[in-house]
Amino acid sequence: MQTSTSTSTTTTSRAIGIDLGGTAIKGAIIDGSGVVGAVTRVPTEAHGGGQRVLGNILSLIGELIEKSGAPASSFVGVGIGTPGFVDGDGTILGGAENLPGWKGTQVYSPVTERFGLPAAAANDVTAVALAELMFGAGRGVKNMACFALGTGVGGGIVANGRLYKGSHGMAGELGHIVVETGGRECPCGQKGCVERYASATGIVQTAIEMAAEGGQTQLAQLARGNPAAVTSKAVYERVAEGDELAVRVHENACDMLGRAVGIMINAFSPDRVVIGGGVAMAGGVIIEAVKRYAALHSWPAIFERCEIVPAQMGEDAGVLGAGALAIEEFGG
Amino acid sequence: MQTSTSTSTTTTSRAIGIDLGGTAIKGAIIDGSGVVGAVTRVPTEAHGGGQRVLGNILSLIGELIEKSGAPASSFVGVGIGTPGFVDGDGTILGGAENLPGWKGTQVYSPVTERFGLPAAAANDVTAVALAELMFGAGRGVKNMACFALGTGVGGGIVANGRLYKGSHGMAGELGHIVVETGGRECPCGQKGCVERYASATGIVQTAIEMAAEGGQTQLAQLARGNPAAVTSKAVYERVAEGDELAVRVHENACDMLGRAVGIMINAFSPDRVVIGGGVAMAGGVIIEAVKRYAALHSWPAIFERCEIVPAQMGEDAGVLGAGALAIEEFGG
Repeated sequence: MQTSTSTSTTTTSRAIGIDLGGTAIKGAIIDGSGVVGAVTRVPTEAHGGGQRVLGNILSLIGELIEKSGAPASSFVGVGIGTPGFVDGDGTILGGAENLPGWKGTQVYSPVTERFGLPAAAANDVTAVALAELMFGAGRGVKNMACFALGTGVGGGIVANGRLYKGSHGMAGELGHIVVETGGRECPCGQKGCVERYASATGIVQTAIEMAAEGGQTQLAQLARGNPAAVTSKAVYERVAEGDELAVRVHENACDMLGRAVGIMINAFSPDRVVIGGGVAMAGGVIIEAVKRYAALHSWPAIFERCEIVPAQMGEDAGVLGAGALAIEEFGG
Repeated sequence: MQTSTSTSTTTTSRAIGIDLGGTAIKGAIIDGSGVVGAVTRVPTEAHGGGQRVLGNILSLIGELIEKSGAPASSFVGVGIGTPGFVDGDGTILGGAENLPGWKGTQVYSPVTERFGLPAAAANDVTAVALAELMFGAGRGVKNMACFALGTGVGGGIVANGRLYKGSHGMAGELGHIVVETGGRECPCGQKGCVERYASATGIVQTAIEMAAEGGQTQLAQLARGNPAAVTSKAVYERVAEGDELAVRVHENACDMLGRAVGIMINAFSPDRVVIGGGVAMAGGVIIEAVKRYAALHSWPAIFERCEIVPAQMGEDAGVLGAGALAIEEFGG
């Protein structure tokens, strides 16, 4: 299927998109143009364990189908964005620390048994990347890489005008490109993954580590006095105010991301690299810095032929991307 | 075009393949089955400068066409593998230090003006990778990455069953994946590119550096007494003999290559990674070590779904790959 949304094939396919978060589950009907109707939100009830979370997802799917007034069979499938990593058969492999008991849950068969619909799941940040590919800054681009900066760093690749997923649906783990030899330990088992530096989690860790080394800026004092209050948003508010520590934290994150972008440029020569996700909403400041660092970390002749642009999707990117996952897989 | 050589489209296309080296230029007629007839070899005459080298290439193309007994128009085009880096329009951008005056040479228009055939050029080690994709260990594989270890490290990517070149023919510079933060300087402008460690050049440098630190093994004594005699072949002969320094040099090269392979596994989830080129002819010893290191440097669930295998092509890989380049671009 083409990533372009202008084909009739794409616009006639409708899917249910589910974006699972630690606090809320968001669900919506998605077609090739975007969200149909409104986004519905229910509590995750993560404390109830994996089966409770799954039950809440199934209820939300049922509610969305019922509200649509159409039969389940009018949808091509259900797409689910989830924290952590999903195996090719729909089993959560781990990496979803804020959802106790979610690891090991099989998410495909319950959806199919209850609604007769096929399901596709992916990491929630990968889903954000997919939303950019299908609805945002990636529309119509032939060769593209997308980095989505959230709690982790997700990725997506378009090759020759099609979403590139690999033979097992596992391609695009761009957050686990190693950018610092012997660097921070990553739950994936490697050291120095870009996700450990350029995600919200990574930025907070850098701020706290750098603050511990000294300095009297507002961010340094906050990070030492009340580390729990340090968020990537708090860092970027202070970048805007010129806080010297915040600027250093920001430069570090963008250097690390620039290295991963550089690797993708050399290996893949994309026409466009899209930087999205919640963290990147700080906007121009991140894009400009990543461009600067990626130029240092890639072959000039290839770099010159690649645009680095901000994502275009807003807060519904996760649910849009989840629906897009099902449209990509089962639509048309 | 499919990379498989079993389609009638591919087998009916014939191209001229030219493999430019520092000492000799090799040329042959290539079709979808491999080399047609014999490989012809003429001196490069690198000392004569870029125009002399180009003249020798053109003469060789003319000779091959004449010998074929068929008109130039019976060929789909000319493919040229060259040291260094080639721009999308066929201009040598540099990186060919053993060919003075070759940088800046335009190679497409003289071929087209003289023979009325389109030309395609690529780095010589990229061409080796392409030969593996079309004729060797990559045949019929849907998603694949190839690393070719020669003077440099070349690469190639197959995505969804097709050679992936990017919009400007520049994709697959896998030798310039950075694997050591702040590592060895690379002519490409970066530091720590895998090419600086896992190519013949890199292996020799590692051997000389490690020998300078001490040790009394045969390789250590050779490297200190007669560094010009240290070649990657000399290192691998001593690996086979159990020379302790040689084994450390080998492990270092495979660790570095394993990191780059791991990055490609995480980003791209290939079904197969092929390791080829002159250096890799040491065979099993390199493949086993690279597997060991790549396992440490990639996500286990993705790694498990990827084979790491040796290349199958011999010494004509360069000329075969050059011809394959033209068949890929202009054939069928």
